[in-house]
Amino acid sequence: MSERPTPVSVIGLGPMGRAVAGAFLDAGHPTTVWNRTAARTEPLVARGATGAATAAGAVAAGPLVVTCLLDDDAVHAVLDPVAFGGGRTLVNLTSASPEQARRRAAWARERGIAYLDGTIMTPTPTIGRSSALVLYSGPEETYRTQAPVLASLGGTATYLGDDPGRAAAYDMALLDIFWHSVGGIVHGLALARAEGISGGALAPYAESIFGLLPEMTARFARQLDEGVHPGERSTIASAAAGIDHIIATAEVHGIDTGTLTASRALLRRAVEAGHGADGLSRLAATLARPAA
Amino acid sequence: MSERPTPVSVIGLGPMGRAVAGAFLDAGHPTTVWNRTAARTEPLVARGATGAATAAGAVAAGPLVVTCLLDDDAVHAVLDPVAFGGGRTLVNLTSASPEQARRRAAWARERGIAYLDGTIMTPTPTIGRSSALVLYSGPEETYRTQAPVLASLGGTATYLGDDPGRAAAYDMALLDIFWHSVGGIVHGLALARAEGISGGALAPYAESIFGLLPEMTARFARQLDEGVHPGERSTIASAAAGIDHIIATAEVHGIDTGTLTASRALLRRAVEAGHGADGLSRLAATLARPAA
Ligand SMILES: NC(=O)c1ccc[n+]([C@@H]2O[C@H](COP(=O)([O-])OP(=O)(O)OC[C@H]3O[C@@H](n4cnc5c(N)ncnc54)[C@H](OP(=O)(O)O)[C@@H]3O)[C@@H](O)[C@H]2O)c1
Ligand SMILES: NC(=O)c1ccc[n+]([C@@H]2O[C@H](COP(=O)([O-])OP(=O)(O)OC[C@H]3O[C@@H](n4cnc5c(N)ncnc54)[C@H](OP(=O)(O)O)[C@@H]3O)[C@@H](O)[C@H]2O)c1
Repeated sequence: MSERPTPVSVIGLGPMGRAVAGAFLDAGHPTTVWNRTAARTEPLVARGATGAATAAGAVAAGPLVVTCLLDDDAVHAVLDPVAFGGGRTLVNLTSASPEQARRRAAWARERGIAYLDGTIMTPTPTIGRSSALVLYSGPEETYRTQAPVLASLGGTATYLGDDPGRAAAYDMALLDIFWHSVGGIVHGLALARAEGISGGALAPYAESIFGLLPEMTARFARQLDEGVHPGERSTIASAAAGIDHIIATAEVHGIDTGTLTASRALLRRAVEAGHGADGLSRLAATLARPAA
Repeated sequence: MSERPTPVSVIGLGPMGRAVAGAFLDAGHPTTVWNRTAARTEPLVARGATGAATAAGAVAAGPLVVTCLLDDDAVHAVLDPVAFGGGRTLVNLTSASPEQARRRAAWARERGIAYLDGTIMTPTPTIGRSSALVLYSGPEETYRTQAPVLASLGGTATYLGDDPGRAAAYDMALLDIFWHSVGGIVHGLALARAEGISGGALAPYAESIFGLLPEMTARFARQLDEGVHPGERSTIASAAAGIDHIIATAEVHGIDTGTLTASRALLRRAVEAGHGADGLSRLAATLARPAA
């Protein structure tokens, strides 16, 4: 940390924005905060932050502006009316699609703003701690310059290259995995409950399931990269049969089966294409939608 | 292990049936095997198993019959024509719905067969090792009698009570979580590839994601059991925005979005019901399909 910590302005104080602003404060950076709903600044001001009356005021307060908003539309709504002074850097921690991130980078370039796209891969309690994971992409020089300040967010910071959409692309693929898994957790808990099994009774067994996923992901990744999809451990046809039982059980209890029937459709399409005896990594290759 | 190991007959030699038969052989049990496609018995016969010419022959070979078939229809096709002699125990390791398991138990009772429903929660390489997890339900006496033989499958064996559908109910809820996660892995790998990110580049980051799931499951389980769904860490509204980006990115690449749009429909339904500011555990409560 340099002797005079860089001032940071944080725009957006949802659960993650609050954690981010708190981490900058904890690391000793003079921190200015702004949020559309002004009341959310109060706990941070109580911890030493300066509350800005407007987003323009927050941008004017220092050289580094960090946005953490709901989505790119919110970034647009908040930043478009603001005139950035010279020498400003914008680190945008708002989740977006790769295309949105690339457009946001172009928007910043037109305005002479140094732009880094960042994506936080871990939940709020990790911020400022060793378990945080944040991915960045954009100009390498901008990353190198801001890295010491961004280190306040804790954990692992990974620079993924100068394509500003790269961090968002990793984000999309990893959140894709995450939201499918979260969907499974809530669906499985609902199904268990309908069968008279409490959340507390089911949860410990779920750990055995999660313990299988890293090895499986690494194996599927290798098989996809190599284009081979061996079925000697389990097959697409067996998975299609297995998912049928889950759907039948959910239907008995009137539980929505939308995600499961969509998965079954994918499995059946793979079986119909002659891949029933292949391993599940083959599914990644069948995922491209057939031309209409 | 007793001095004269119990003879075991294994019916069904798919990937899991082969692992199960191999574990009984490794533990020193005289093992008879049968499979519809006879050639699959050969590697096991080479390891010391006895190949039966018919399913009836396998059932006649000893007191304990273990089935590991594709699904309950396959159990029906194989066992319905077979006359079980007296004193037989059937341990059915075929995945089924709780209703199917209860019907299979009734079927066995009518025939004077002691019946235990078992469900294997871990993949084939775990069988016979410490990481195996197998759940059982059915009459406690039957479980106690067979437990020493079933210990050959390795790892943790858990007895869940005398409702023969109980193991299947846990199986369904846990496989529900599992298949959602597996669906996410193949979908995320496909999305990454479409963005020019190899499987090998993505996979290590997925570990950070999976590391979050046990704590999240325990927390959601507790919140569901207590009926409180705090949104202070992340909200349903934020998830709905996040999943939109993933769908948009998948659509750019022509990747099927069926599972994601089904999840989004669920999130939107929860937002419309006024739960947008709640935590994600609330979704488990909204999963019951509204009456048509
Ligand atoms: N929470 C997590 O665990 C987590 C983890 C990784 C990444 N992220 C990402 O971090 C970002 C922020 O997430 P979050 O959890 O802090 O909360 P969020 O619910 O995604 O976003 C809330 C923030 O966006 C603001 N906002 C929304 N629409 C706006 C608009 N039209 N104009 C101005 N401000 C607007 C809200 O202001 P008001 O207070 O006025 O509503 C609030 O500051 C998201 O992109 C999210 O994907 C979050
Ligand atoms: N593999 C795993 O990782 C795993 C993990 C946990 C639980 N399980 C469960 O274990 C059970 C067996 O799975 P698996 O992976 O070994 O393979 P599987 O593909 O689910 O089942 C294949 C077995 O079923 C037989 N079969 C299918 N239809 C039949 C019919 N109509 N008549 C007679 N036999 C029939 C096959 O015979 P043929 O050889 O003649 O086709 C083969 O023996 C399933 O219920 C599965 O859910 C598997």
